[in-house]
Amino acid sequence: MSSASFDGIPAFAIVSFMAAEKERILTGDTPTGKLHLGHWVGTLENRVALQHEYDLFVISADLHALTTLKDDPARVRDYAREVLLDNLAVGLSPDAITYFIESDVPEIYELAAFFSMYVTHAEALRNPTIKDEIVAKKLGTRYSLGFINYPVYQAADILCVKASLVPVGKDQEAHIEFAREIARTLNARIGYELFPEPQARIGRVGKLVGTDGNPKMSKSLGNTIFLSDTEEEVTRKVMGMYTDPARIHATDPGTVEGNPVFIYLDAFGTDAHRNHIEEYKARYREGKVGDVEVKRFLAAVLNEFLSPIRARRETYAAQPDLLRDILARGAARVRAEAAETLKELRRGLKLTPIA
Amino acid sequence: MSSASFDGIPAFAIVSFMAAEKERILTGDTPTGKLHLGHWVGTLENRVALQHEYDLFVISADLHALTTLKDDPARVRDYAREVLLDNLAVGLSPDAITYFIESDVPEIYELAAFFSMYVTHAEALRNPTIKDEIVAKKLGTRYSLGFINYPVYQAADILCVKASLVPVGKDQEAHIEFAREIARTLNARIGYELFPEPQARIGRVGKLVGTDGNPKMSKSLGNTIFLSDTEEEVTRKVMGMYTDPARIHATDPGTVEGNPVFIYLDAFGTDAHRNHIEEYKARYREGKVGDVEVKRFLAAVLNEFLSPIRARRETYAAQPDLLRDILARGAARVRAEAAETLKELRRGLKLTPIA
Repeated sequence: MSSASFDGIPAFAIVSFMAAEKERILTGDTPTGKLHLGHWVGTLENRVALQHEYDLFVISADLHALTTLKDDPARVRDYAREVLLDNLAVGLSPDAITYFIESDVPEIYELAAFFSMYVTHAEALRNPTIKDEIVAKKLGTRYSLGFINYPVYQAADILCVKASLVPVGKDQEAHIEFAREIARTLNARIGYELFPEPQARIGRVGKLVGTDGNPKMSKSLGNTIFLSDTEEEVTRKVMGMYTDPARIHATDPGTVEGNPVFIYLDAFGTDAHRNHIEEYKARYREGKVGDVEVKRFLAAVLNEFLSPIRARRETYAAQPDLLRDILARGAARVRAEAAETLKELRRGLKLTPIA
Repeated sequence: MSSASFDGIPAFAIVSFMAAEKERILTGDTPTGKLHLGHWVGTLENRVALQHEYDLFVISADLHALTTLKDDPARVRDYAREVLLDNLAVGLSPDAITYFIESDVPEIYELAAFFSMYVTHAEALRNPTIKDEIVAKKLGTRYSLGFINYPVYQAADILCVKASLVPVGKDQEAHIEFAREIARTLNARIGYELFPEPQARIGRVGKLVGTDGNPKMSKSLGNTIFLSDTEEEVTRKVMGMYTDPARIHATDPGTVEGNPVFIYLDAFGTDAHRNHIEEYKARYREGKVGDVEVKRFLAAVLNEFLSPIRARRETYAAQPDLLRDILARGAARVRAEAAETLKELRRGLKLTPIA
């Protein structure tokens, strides 16, 4: 969207027109754990960057969290609180964004139910992200019916507010394609473009390697640095990080590419760190710096990055009334939007009124 | 429930206690066609008999109708209207019952979404009614995800108002068993009996043979007599009915057992017809009466049965405001009940509040 003014229209008119027409983004998290550095590069950074330019909806998909926590739902509640704090802590402004808990909006599930009539069971099972999750979460054959439904719920999350852009990690791209297919199917059925075809916006790094060198940072792999970790925890985790396994002594030439320590430096170093980082890379390649020194530098870089996040987190955590208000406002806005979308869909399908 | 009074409690107190404690029934129809005589013996008769003794909820499962009508949803709307009129026409009183359209209650779909997290995909696919429907409706492999979800939606229909009794046709018994399992699972999870374990009440005849002798009267088989058929249509359909295929002449001894004409006479004849019916049976067995005479008698019996139904149908059809009001009142009551049930479930699961 350009902010250039159009000929003959006064500037203030443009501004109010732009405000009404702000494109919508829907993104969010499944509250199965606190958010970590992988979430920052995968999606949070995008959210912060886009929150003022777009109308940003952030969902906490609490029902999806029951896929792994159905026998301990109280943990979903606890994680949902942590994840809300994580989102606010990274700098999302409660005034700029609409934050809501999925299960506070029953209309989403009705929209999903309508969608599920226009998706075959076979199509739902073909979803590659679903297949990957079955393996990654070790679900075996005991996965729930709700788990299979999840891509449809996610399509409803996005389309209930007619979001056109969805910033996600690379692993969620298939779900957005699925939402697009549903939008196309329903639009074709009702004969006009009720739903936008939402596009995925993949994060800058997309996926962040874990502290152990595993290609994905993930709570279940125990290779995470959480946004809520203390300075000491971060330093301890960094000092234990995987580097170049072929390098035995500080005087051995080392490999920078694919080395988690340097990947993190590239991802979290600011412009002010850039020269230092390049210097360390050169010395590492030549065998002129030890792992310990580079790790100490990384710990400092990460703690500098996390310091304002920790401070904001504390401020929000001390204001339960504000948190409740954020959730109540979010739910109210999305319920109204979703109810209207449902009404339009039913009108489009010629399902109502019956009398 | 007994209406005997307890020692020491004045009668009026008993009465108001009983009113508050009326047991709840949930039943209903999928609006894929007008209701017929098979529906009367399978469930409608039960509804009429139970409407004052119980708190009776009647649902129109419009979403389920999309299983076969997704490419022509306007027909779902039209059938939903016909089915509402059918229910009122057989004598359900709008003041006694709560009639609602499923998609008017988004909370049902959220409740179903919760349920679907506690049911495995494999369990859902094992449902015998689902398997039968795939064959009966010729769904092949192109059945929708929503179709697989349907038993869970039905469980939510029943349990959102905590109905303990469900009058259904024999073919729906497996769904009620499924709803019981969900109630048990959730009750066990939250540690108290939030949901009743609903019981099926199978109709007097259960399943009515079609006019062509097929074991099931069904619109798709073209062997139905609709509650809304005119006197002429009923007579025409009865005169074309299947009887005893082994009998060639009116003077041949005929078989009464399994003969659709006599099955209908037994099902729709009143006490006043009883002697006549037994007489016809005896004469038929002896080869002393022709098919035509028995059929003429059956047509008269059926038209006598349908005459007050037709009259009530006309009265209601002429009052669109009343119909709208019935649906609006029903939806409002069920939404409030279902929202409360959802709240209790989330409290039971310790999912809220998060802040």
